[in-house]
Amino acid sequence: MSRLVMKFGGTSVANLERIRRVAKRVGVEVANGHEVIVVVSAMSGKTNELVGWVRETSPLYDAREYDAVVSSGENVTAGLLALVLQENGIDARSWQGWQVPVKTTSAHGSARIEEIPSANLDAKFSEGMKVAVVAGFQGISPEGRITTLGRGGSDTTAVAFAAAFDAVRCDIYTDVDGVYTTDPRVASKARKLDKIAFEEMLELASLGAKVLQTRSVELAMRYNVRLRVLSSFEEMSDNAGTLVCPEEDIMESNVVSGVAFSRDEAQMTLVSVADRPGVSAAIFGPLAEAGIVVDMIVQNIAEDGRTDMTFSLPVDQVDRARTAMEGAKAAGAINFHDLIADTEVAKVSVVGIGMRSHAGVAAQMFAALRDYGVNIKVITTSEIKISVLIDRKFMELAVQALHDVFELEKV
Amino acid sequence: MSRLVMKFGGTSVANLERIRRVAKRVGVEVANGHEVIVVVSAMSGKTNELVGWVRETSPLYDAREYDAVVSSGENVTAGLLALVLQENGIDARSWQGWQVPVKTTSAHGSARIEEIPSANLDAKFSEGMKVAVVAGFQGISPEGRITTLGRGGSDTTAVAFAAAFDAVRCDIYTDVDGVYTTDPRVASKARKLDKIAFEEMLELASLGAKVLQTRSVELAMRYNVRLRVLSSFEEMSDNAGTLVCPEEDIMESNVVSGVAFSRDEAQMTLVSVADRPGVSAAIFGPLAEAGIVVDMIVQNIAEDGRTDMTFSLPVDQVDRARTAMEGAKAAGAINFHDLIADTEVAKVSVVGIGMRSHAGVAAQMFAALRDYGVNIKVITTSEIKISVLIDRKFMELAVQALHDVFELEKV
Repeated sequence: MSRLVMKFGGTSVANLERIRRVAKRVGVEVANGHEVIVVVSAMSGKTNELVGWVRETSPLYDAREYDAVVSSGENVTAGLLALVLQENGIDARSWQGWQVPVKTTSAHGSARIEEIPSANLDAKFSEGMKVAVVAGFQGISPEGRITTLGRGGSDTTAVAFAAAFDAVRCDIYTDVDGVYTTDPRVASKARKLDKIAFEEMLELASLGAKVLQTRSVELAMRYNVRLRVLSSFEEMSDNAGTLVCPEEDIMESNVVSGVAFSRDEAQMTLVSVADRPGVSAAIFGPLAEAGIVVDMIVQNIAEDGRTDMTFSLPVDQVDRARTAMEGAKAAGAINFHDLIADTEVAKVSVVGIGMRSHAGVAAQMFAALRDYGVNIKVITTSEIKISVLIDRKFMELAVQALHDVFELEKV
Repeated sequence: MSRLVMKFGGTSVANLERIRRVAKRVGVEVANGHEVIVVVSAMSGKTNELVGWVRETSPLYDAREYDAVVSSGENVTAGLLALVLQENGIDARSWQGWQVPVKTTSAHGSARIEEIPSANLDAKFSEGMKVAVVAGFQGISPEGRITTLGRGGSDTTAVAFAAAFDAVRCDIYTDVDGVYTTDPRVASKARKLDKIAFEEMLELASLGAKVLQTRSVELAMRYNVRLRVLSSFEEMSDNAGTLVCPEEDIMESNVVSGVAFSRDEAQMTLVSVADRPGVSAAIFGPLAEAGIVVDMIVQNIAEDGRTDMTFSLPVDQVDRARTAMEGAKAAGAINFHDLIADTEVAKVSVVGIGMRSHAGVAAQMFAALRDYGVNIKVITTSEIKISVLIDRKFMELAVQALHDVFELEKV
């Protein structure tokens, strides 16, 4: 019998009425002939309440106790959904992480799933269970303690179950109805995509499209799990949402699939750095140690043995980065004349697997930005993505221009 | 090192401020040289919220899912208290039922503890753990599912841990400061008892003194666990609260230790029942099947082969009892002329292990009631208890009179 994984986030299970709606959707898939694994989040607001209590008790809390407390939210939802399903005549039961078991590392608060043995659920499915309701976001460490998976953990749980149980698909129900060519709030012509390749979704996810966590997309790509993102607030249909799938499942696609952006970026330049072997390590080592997430990096051609080093970072990390750089300079690890920070920049990217076989995308992008008078500060490229750093005030304009130029409103 | 069990109920851990106060008390006992096992309830209100959700989802709910949902409240408190203790520099960790493990029967919603293997906690104590914070009220079934123990479950958890870990004492912190000779709201001369024997406490508990659940007292008596009932809202002292202990630990005691009462009783009489072998079974069988808790039973001497049968029951079960009796009559199982119910009665009892060696307690009790014009409807006695059923309007008067007559205000 075919297995299907369905995942419902916090807003989809926010109260009993919504949990009943979730149960109906699950019931439809059971009627379709699936054995279903449902992964649920905590009712929205509950996790924040629990996290708030933990933070208030102890600023430097023991992550093991944090996990023991915070994981309880998902347990409640799992039990309630199992009850509603039973009420609807469906053989369902709840599973907490340790009961499955979802074996994870001991990295409390951000554990990684290592293995999900299928024996326990398989045994119950073969006894007639139709739906396993799994508490998302949690697992059990080798020491027998409860772990949580950190941000986006429930999506990751869902994908890991889909992989472990060889599911036909993993449906991620959320409060948006799919993945769009760009954010509709920025470009009104934004269009929902029917399909998107894993690689594209990864670029979009890491660039700030908040639909799916990068981690769950990576896992889906590695295990070839077909993901569908869809809204739990709309009518069910076969074509609902966006399918995130292997590239080969997409027959024809636009050269560019989407325009992503990240608003709160900063650009930092170390002016006139002595250019010698090891200088990059001397700069980015201290930044990494300070926990700063550097994104784009550009090094100018050296003149007279000195060069400028520019990198982008989240705007709220600028002060910490400055401190780290000045500390490294004071310690004699690096040498630069000046440190310039621009906190009024944004990043705009075009993403598409079609770029691989299409030349000229970058040229087309730069021309479009030029036509609108947008100055490009930094450029980086990958095989399926071109990103530029621009003045933040031009961000919306740039997104709309690129959406038009690459005709993303057309299927 | 000596072990101490401390148990805190829902009002004692109702919010973070109170949890911090609990942590201070636990800290004092650690400083006194104890290894401490703390058993906690859910924050007050939380269990009701969870139970409400379960009832709303499913009137005839699966008790296994009920347990999975409802047990989460205790998990939250356990984690939070462990965090506060750590914050205070005390090596503490939380334990959920399945982690200890607290092995129970599979009777979900009212499971019984079968075994608490001490190996896991012992190992951690020997590694330096000073406090194990245990989520009360819960355990794990042979099938690996979460169970709850039903009413008074956290007290039972505490006593079971005290027995399993050979604790010097089990301190039950609650919102009253001990066990009283009677309810101070009814008799202002009521006095807190320093000590009370298990047997007396059992009679008082089952008669309506709501301080401790019968079940936990029974368990304490069986395993000889010295229980102390005390308030979590008063200053700590060695003489705080009431010690519930084996009879031999009480040097001298009053003949009567306390006056208990139960307000909402009813009395039912089957008039002129055919008196033949098996008639009691024919009456009380259908009542038991209907879930009616019959308490006192009196059968008159038979005349002409017929007798009157009188019994007491909770007033809110009268209608059900009447239906059961008339059903049994219609089915020909019993035969009676009339069924009379008096819903305006109350039960008053005097309890004391001293009665065993003192004659005349009953006579003294009946004389006191007579002097105040209180008519006695039904009498039952046990070795350490005399109970009477009287008109409810005389209840307070009777309690005060008996408190005076047996001089319970004096130590």
